[in-house]
Amino acid sequence: MPLFSTEEYRERIRKTEAAMAEAGVDVLVSADPANMNYLTGYDGWSFYVPQVVVVSADADEPVWIGRGMDVAGAKLTTFLSHDNIIGYPDDYVQNPVKHPLHFVADRLKERGWGKKRVGVELDAYYYTARSDRSLREGLPEATFVNADLLVNWIRLVKSDAEIALMKEAGKISEKVMATALERVRPGVRECDAVAAVYKAQMSGTEEFGGDYPSIVPMMPTGEKTATPHLTWTDEPYGNETAVNLELAACRHRYHSPLARTAWIGKNPPEKLTRIADVTVEGLDTTLAAIKPGMRCEEVELVWREIIAKAGLEKESRIGYPIGVNYPPDWGEHTASLRPGDKTVLKPNMCFHMILGMWMDNWGFECSEALRVTENGCETFAEFPRKLFVID
Amino acid sequence: MPLFSTEEYRERIRKTEAAMAEAGVDVLVSADPANMNYLTGYDGWSFYVPQVVVVSADADEPVWIGRGMDVAGAKLTTFLSHDNIIGYPDDYVQNPVKHPLHFVADRLKERGWGKKRVGVELDAYYYTARSDRSLREGLPEATFVNADLLVNWIRLVKSDAEIALMKEAGKISEKVMATALERVRPGVRECDAVAAVYKAQMSGTEEFGGDYPSIVPMMPTGEKTATPHLTWTDEPYGNETAVNLELAACRHRYHSPLARTAWIGKNPPEKLTRIADVTVEGLDTTLAAIKPGMRCEEVELVWREIIAKAGLEKESRIGYPIGVNYPPDWGEHTASLRPGDKTVLKPNMCFHMILGMWMDNWGFECSEALRVTENGCETFAEFPRKLFVID
Repeated sequence: MPLFSTEEYRERIRKTEAAMAEAGVDVLVSADPANMNYLTGYDGWSFYVPQVVVVSADADEPVWIGRGMDVAGAKLTTFLSHDNIIGYPDDYVQNPVKHPLHFVADRLKERGWGKKRVGVELDAYYYTARSDRSLREGLPEATFVNADLLVNWIRLVKSDAEIALMKEAGKISEKVMATALERVRPGVRECDAVAAVYKAQMSGTEEFGGDYPSIVPMMPTGEKTATPHLTWTDEPYGNETAVNLELAACRHRYHSPLARTAWIGKNPPEKLTRIADVTVEGLDTTLAAIKPGMRCEEVELVWREIIAKAGLEKESRIGYPIGVNYPPDWGEHTASLRPGDKTVLKPNMCFHMILGMWMDNWGFECSEALRVTENGCETFAEFPRKLFVID
Repeated sequence: MPLFSTEEYRERIRKTEAAMAEAGVDVLVSADPANMNYLTGYDGWSFYVPQVVVVSADADEPVWIGRGMDVAGAKLTTFLSHDNIIGYPDDYVQNPVKHPLHFVADRLKERGWGKKRVGVELDAYYYTARSDRSLREGLPEATFVNADLLVNWIRLVKSDAEIALMKEAGKISEKVMATALERVRPGVRECDAVAAVYKAQMSGTEEFGGDYPSIVPMMPTGEKTATPHLTWTDEPYGNETAVNLELAACRHRYHSPLARTAWIGKNPPEKLTRIADVTVEGLDTTLAAIKPGMRCEEVELVWREIIAKAGLEKESRIGYPIGVNYPPDWGEHTASLRPGDKTVLKPNMCFHMILGMWMDNWGFECSEALRVTENGCETFAEFPRKLFVID
């Protein structure tokens, strides 16, 4: 039932151990659900309680430690031998005195890792301040090293098997966006359009179903287009207004986001069509320029120069890596397509390139999820790049 | 646009300040998105970057500090004056050197709070180890106090306005469960049944729409009923098998979960019908027994005694408080319906009471979301309590 071959997991672990050696880490305690999945295959909605995967160069394979009731799920979804799947008793859950990371510390000591250099992900979601404190309390003789993003950087270059899933997610994302453009209509409640989008995300295609994306559908309209992270209401969509559709599809936790903008009404304002033209030209040209060997900042420069010709500029980054992930974010938090980022593109790096231009109270955005190929790049979805007009 | 009256927010803050005084906290830095919403009204999918609400007895009202691009959303959704909504520059985001909690520390010092007793939520989701470390680095003269769950305990008793939203969520949950029972059929792909459930969750009713619940739909079948947190696949539902439906509806972030069990096939096994009868009897009797003044452990004892008569026992807790929340959990992490919990029930406390009995490779579960009333309790949904048979 693990998604990938054991050989593929072992290769990921070999790379992780090499990065650990370089970072001076003997034992890595990873609490990021995406890293736990990447290293072992573990996939469950159990990250609301503390759980970790432990990697040590002197162990055959990683150790999964989580809540007792999730052990059965770990046995079904990981490639690990059952000896390396350990559950903590339920009285560790939401207990003001003892914490699951105390239990983790005890298991580490048992394996002779109590005095090692222990790497922890200081800024990972779900690795709370108390998790960190409890692990340190339990391992007073260990040396702690910040190993934040260590595994995330390895995730940056995908395997062909991972790419295959992202292509499937890309196919689903086409249906998701088509559904949104079909359902957003004046007088239709936002929640009903969102409901149709969710249905399309999960139903997927006839060949393969969808998984829950790590971010909910964002479909702001009117004054909310200036506030990127407010979710929907049950108000009807208006007329003569823009709607930004920031959506995604997911396949076995692998994401392919897709953003488009629509104008609800007969005649989009000239300033919106103009900015749409510039943005789409920028997107086309930047996609055409991407190739292995280029640096992230050079990709951003292509875009920057095109919009500068139109007298525009955009301050925020224009892209970030994507792949396996869990709520609250599908971004990998490593490289960024922005000035100063010297990361060199390699084949099978995957990015969500999202170009958005916001004016006072409306904006235009258009994005593609893409893979760097041997000599360029390809997008996971095929969907027209333009301002859609819903009249 | 804030959901509740300013007076209601002020009352919540007064209670928080009283709890702070008792806990020896001068300044509370709350990073839990549910607490941020409770104290100010803030509602956005922006908790994937650090953000906080700061409460101090010597300030007129709380201060919201988050990412610059989310300031507009905070202005739209909170009751705060715009002076108390502060955005940090975007170069704090995913920056290996400076962290948003350094920015928060600077704002605290500006307000003369640099030497105060600062309360932090050590085990709150999204308050990472690095968040805690950065705040301490930035406030070397402050005294830190663990204020974990301080606001959660205040959330335990709901206002009538909160109850009104939970009743709406309860109404939606009836439609959600009816949809699931209608769509789960032999040969139907799990992802398609889940898609219909999502659609029902968001569409809500004709009068009011739905919001995204904090946990995805759980609809395990076959051997996965023994693994509570694995999500769906695109395999078809089988025949002669059980399916556990652990669902919810949400209205403006207020939850009403609902769990039922169905047997797909003509004749459910006698051991399943027997355990369903005992569980439903236990649920009915426990609901009838609940009244203000009872302790949480006494509620659990009613259930325990009923199943003991049938020769059964269940080790885990049978309920937890619910209300406003964000992924990854709709539970409030305070009281529990379990032995040893001395919390005294009061009117407008709301619980998800979930009774589940798991055998080797199948189980039966049945739940209700409920409010303690002046003299008993009432459920938010009305839905038959029984084993459903889908044939």
